[in-house]
Amino acid sequence: MRNIKITIKYDGSKYKGWQRLKTSDSTIQSKIEAVVSKMTNEEIEIIGSGRTDAGVHAIAQIANFKTNSKMNLSEMHEYLYNYLPQDIVIINIEEVDIRFHSRYNAISKTYLYKIDNNKIHDPFLRKYTTHIPHKLNLDNMKKASEHLIGEHDFSSFKSSKSKKKSNIRTINSIEIEEENGFINIKINGNGFLHNMVRIIVGTLIDIGHGKFKPDYMKNILESKDRSIAGSTAYSQGLCLYKVNYEKVM
Amino acid sequence: MRNIKITIKYDGSKYKGWQRLKTSDSTIQSKIEAVVSKMTNEEIEIIGSGRTDAGVHAIAQIANFKTNSKMNLSEMHEYLYNYLPQDIVIINIEEVDIRFHSRYNAISKTYLYKIDNNKIHDPFLRKYTTHIPHKLNLDNMKKASEHLIGEHDFSSFKSSKSKKKSNIRTINSIEIEEENGFINIKINGNGFLHNMVRIIVGTLIDIGHGKFKPDYMKNILESKDRSIAGSTAYSQGLCLYKVNYEKVM
Repeated sequence: MRNIKITIKYDGSKYKGWQRLKTSDSTIQSKIEAVVSKMTNEEIEIIGSGRTDAGVHAIAQIANFKTNSKMNLSEMHEYLYNYLPQDIVIINIEEVDIRFHSRYNAISKTYLYKIDNNKIHDPFLRKYTTHIPHKLNLDNMKKASEHLIGEHDFSSFKSSKSKKKSNIRTINSIEIEEENGFINIKINGNGFLHNMVRIIVGTLIDIGHGKFKPDYMKNILESKDRSIAGSTAYSQGLCLYKVNYEKVM
Repeated sequence: MRNIKITIKYDGSKYKGWQRLKTSDSTIQSKIEAVVSKMTNEEIEIIGSGRTDAGVHAIAQIANFKTNSKMNLSEMHEYLYNYLPQDIVIINIEEVDIRFHSRYNAISKTYLYKIDNNKIHDPFLRKYTTHIPHKLNLDNMKKASEHLIGEHDFSSFKSSKSKKKSNIRTINSIEIEEENGFINIKINGNGFLHNMVRIIVGTLIDIGHGKFKPDYMKNILESKDRSIAGSTAYSQGLCLYKVNYEKVM
């Protein structure tokens, strides 16, 4: 039995998210499972590092699958590249230790949220950014974001649909940068509750608009009450940027 | 009567080109005419600097229209921005001399053709580039392009559908640059025959692949025979980059 690790870049615009659904085959996972199963002539389950919501993109999602196929890696890569749709691209493929599990072994993940903060949006980037025409106050957003760094109970920043038992997570860093009117918010953490990145970004946007003062972020966090935080930012601006593993993997 | 000049950035992926058609309202011109006509309560004709084919984009297409409307420019801009679809964006609006004509007064145009020359394409740029996985020889493409500079009969580089009387045009410059595996071909000329840029690019690609030697470009030009040149490059990589006018305008 071989364990194959793949790195996937995808434009999630058209899909109902990563996770396989009973009601639709329009998910990233099911598209990849169909092609890998056909390639190997086995019924393959793809294990992703985590879900992405409908409309969310990935620069480098990680997944793995187990197979008895004897195909070499470059043949596999070519097959997957040719048979997957153009908006789902396998950018890397490698054989890894049989114990590697793309979800359990991930030690942290980085998400990137892109805001087009120009008065007039760029039509070529409209599906990969959220357009906010009113200038955001970056200094206030940065100050607010500092309150989120570290280990906290992020109950205020999870969707009511979230079923996770513990709401304790660690955010290692939040970088907020602006270039040519585009704001990139990069968040690295050991794990994320459902919609956590989008609710954090929605709250930072409210703070950037002056709706709350930066230090109010501390109150929101401490309230453990979803209704106190900002709205969930649109999915189209969000992108799974990187999944980090122990070096030994 | 006022003469209004607009600069338009558009993602042409979904449209049947610039030019109004009797058979479809899915063209850039007809979308803009519908909104401007509604805004002014007049039947407005939009004059574009030139057509773009189905699937071709624009960074800065120029057009003008005449109106008796007394609306101020910033109100007009807001109206057009709000009522046009998200993939057609008016990036500038100004009032110009009543004699200004966006097509007749254009002294040159610059087109940009983008090639994704990486082995694996970028899914986020797939609609704005043409993917050519096999490495192109840029030096040979640059050498070949030099034969096209100046005033020539470009009969070899026009679609058989072209109805223009004269095939004489002047190409002022062709810049070919590569960055991170993306090749940008920028062509400036005083006018272009139907499909001329795409046939030039298609021929440069053949030369980049080694199908013809660089100097063969001279023979193709002199043959005045469309069948000798390369194929028409895909529309999705093409973009109207800039329309140049006399400074006095």
